Amino acid sequence: MQKGKASIQFECPPWITAAGSIAGKKEGEGPLGALFDRTKEDDRMGKDNWEEAESYLQKEAAGLAMKKAGLSPQDIRYLFGGDLLGQLIATSFGLMEFEIPLFGLYGACSTMGEAMSLAAMTVGGGFADRCIALASSHFATAEKQFRFPLGYGNQRPYSATWTATGCGAVVIEKEKAAGGKTKGEKMAKITGITTGKIVDFGLKDSMNMGAAMAPAAFHTIWQNFQDFGWDQDHFDRIITGDLGTVGQKILLDLLRKEGYDLRQQHMDCGIELYDGMKQDTHAGGSGCGCSAITLCAMILPKLKTGEWKRVLFVPTGALLSTVSFNEGRSVPGIAHGVILEHIEEEKREWNT
Amino acid sequence: MQKGKASIQFECPPWITAAGSIAGKKEGEGPLGALFDRTKEDDRMGKDNWEEAESYLQKEAAGLAMKKAGLSPQDIRYLFGGDLLGQLIATSFGLMEFEIPLFGLYGACSTMGEAMSLAAMTVGGGFADRCIALASSHFATAEKQFRFPLGYGNQRPYSATWTATGCGAVVIEKEKAAGGKTKGEKMAKITGITTGKIVDFGLKDSMNMGAAMAPAAFHTIWQNFQDFGWDQDHFDRIITGDLGTVGQKILLDLLRKEGYDLRQQHMDCGIELYDGMKQDTHAGGSGCGCSAITLCAMILPKLKTGEWKRVLFVPTGALLSTVSFNEGRSVPGIAHGVILEHIEEEKREWNT
Repeated sequence: MQKGKASIQFECPPWITAAGSIAGKKEGEGPLGALFDRTKEDDRMGKDNWEEAESYLQKEAAGLAMKKAGLSPQDIRYLFGGDLLGQLIATSFGLMEFEIPLFGLYGACSTMGEAMSLAAMTVGGGFADRCIALASSHFATAEKQFRFPLGYGNQRPYSATWTATGCGAVVIEKEKAAGGKTKGEKMAKITGITTGKIVDFGLKDSMNMGAAMAPAAFHTIWQNFQDFGWDQDHFDRIITGDLGTVGQKILLDLLRKEGYDLRQQHMDCGIELYDGMKQDTHAGGSGCGCSAITLCAMILPKLKTGEWKRVLFVPTGALLSTVSFNEGRSVPGIAHGVILEHIEEEKREWNT
Repeated sequence: MQKGKASIQFECPPWITAAGSIAGKKEGEGPLGALFDRTKEDDRMGKDNWEEAESYLQKEAAGLAMKKAGLSPQDIRYLFGGDLLGQLIATSFGLMEFEIPLFGLYGACSTMGEAMSLAAMTVGGGFADRCIALASSHFATAEKQFRFPLGYGNQRPYSATWTATGCGAVVIEKEKAAGGKTKGEKMAKITGITTGKIVDFGLKDSMNMGAAMAPAAFHTIWQNFQDFGWDQDHFDRIITGDLGTVGQKILLDLLRKEGYDLRQQHMDCGIELYDGMKQDTHAGGSGCGCSAITLCAMILPKLKTGEWKRVLFVPTGALLSTVSFNEGRSVPGIAHGVILEHIEEEKREWNT
C-alpha cells in the first residue's frame, strides 16, 4: 500500500529468514567482531588483488545466507546487489557463478537499503518467493578508487571514516514461501520502506562523508515520519548506515530543528562497528558493507529475539565520484529507509 | 505471475504513456535522426564538461517525458535510472532537482531493460501509479572513462562500437492511473519481463563489446522462450540493445544451434542508430543511451500505431571496467528482456 510521498506499507510483509556476514581483520577486532559469521585474517582473502577479494566476500556472504536457510542458488529467484566500485565489478564477478538473475544497484553506501527495498517490493508484489539482497565494500578497493593508493600513507583528518571490509546478505522470503523447503529462521519482517531522493547541501570535502550524508538521512527519516504519521517513539532504534560521529551530530541537529529528538533512539552502524579511539578509525566506519554486516550480525539477531520490536534501518550513501569531485562538484547524499519488525512467535505457524 | 525460472507475466500490464528522447549531433545525422524529440548540435550541451552534458541529457529526457504526459515531478512516485559512469554521476546530478525518490541502477548498457523491469514490477505490484525509467550514455564521458581520452585519437578496430550520446525516458503507469490527470498516450503495454543473469564467455577485448554481450543476449532470449513456451514467431521483432554487426552474427549463430532462427525477427538498436559506412561507427552504436533512445524514438511509435504488435526488447550490457580489465579479467555480459505489446484501441477506455 502506498503511504504518503515516498513510502510503502506491505500488506503481506516479506520475512528475512537468513543473514550471512563476513568481515575483514579490523572489523573482526572491533566491538562486533564476535558476532560475524566469519572474519578473515587476510584482507586479500588469498586472492591476486583487492577487487577479487571483495568479489570473494560477496560470494561467501550470499553462500552463507543460502546455507543457513537450507537453500541452493536454484531456490533464489533474484539477486539485488551492489558495491562501491565503478561498474559494480565486485558484484558482477562475485555473484556470477550462482547463475541467478541479477539486478545490479548503485546507491553508494545506501545500497543495502536500496537492495532490501526492491527485494521486498518484488516479494511483496508476488513476483518472487525468495530473493537475496546484499552489499559489500572493501577498505583497499575503496581507498584506491576514491582517494589515495594505500602505499601513499596519506594523513586522514578526524572527520574521515574508515571503509569497512565486509559483505552482508539477507534472504527475503514471502511469508508462506516456506512450503517445507526453507530452514530459515524468523529473523524479522519488512513492514515498510521509505525511498530516498538525492539531497545536496553543497558539501565538497571527500574526507567528511558523514556531513555529506546527514542531510539525506535527515530527509528520509523525516519523510518516514510524515508518510506514516508517527515519530521516533514508534521505533526502538533508528539506525543510520555510516554517518559516524560527525554526521550523527548534524543529523540530530537537523531533526531537532523539526521538533524530533532522536537522542534515545539513534544508533549508527559506522559508530558501532569500530572502537574509534583504539582502532584509529576516526569518525567511524563507512562503505556499503558497514551497514550490511551490522544489520546481519547485530540488528537482525536483536529483532529476532524481540529485544527490539521495531527498527528503522536507514543506510546512507554519499554520491562521491573522483570524476565529479575533481570537476569541483559537490557530494550529494541519498538514504533508503527499511522498517524492520520482530515476528511474534505465537501468531504464525512456521515449518509445520 | 511468475513464469519459469526468470520471467514474470503481468496480470495488469503497466502502460508506457510517454517517451522522451534527446540525442547528440552524430545520432541526429543518422538514420533515426528525424525521430528524436530533440537533437543537439553541441555535444557539450553548453556545459563546462562532458559529465555535466550527460546530466543535462537525463534532465531533458525525463522532463520531455513528463511534459508529454502532462505530468509534473510531484506526480512521479519513483525514478529508476542509470548511466555508464562510475558512481552514476550523470544520473545523480541530472535528476537531483526533480526531488523524486530514486533507485540508482547499473546494468552497463542493459540498464534501460533493468529500469523498465523494476518500474513495471513496482507499478504492477501496486506500489506506484507512475514511475519513470531512463538511461543515458555519452560518447565523450564513456571513451574518457573506459578507453582513451578523445584527444589521443586512437585507432578503432572494425569490431568496435560507438557509444551513443543520448538519453531516453519513459513514463510507466498503472493502466487506470489516469484518473483524468495524465495526458499520456497508449504507446505500449509491458506484459512481461525476463531478467538476465551474468554470462561470461571469457572474452577479454574491450574493443569488441558485441562479442562480449552476445552470449548474454542469447541466454535471455532463450530463457524467455523456455519460460513462456513460445519461440521467435510470437514476436514481430526481437530487438537487442547494442550488439552491433559482430555481436548480431554471434547471437544468431548461438540461437541457431538451439534450433531458433531469428533472421526474420532480429533487429539491433546499435545497427539501426547509425549508417555505419557513412558515419565511421564501425560495428554499430552502443551505450545504455543507444537502446533507450531507439526505444523512445522508433520502437514505441511503431507499437503505438500497431505496425508491430509484439516486441521483445533486450538491452544488452557488457560489464567492462578499466580496473578489472587491467587486472586481466574478462568482460562478462548481462541482458534484460522486456515484452512490449500494442494496446488495442477498442478494448479500453482512456481519458474518459
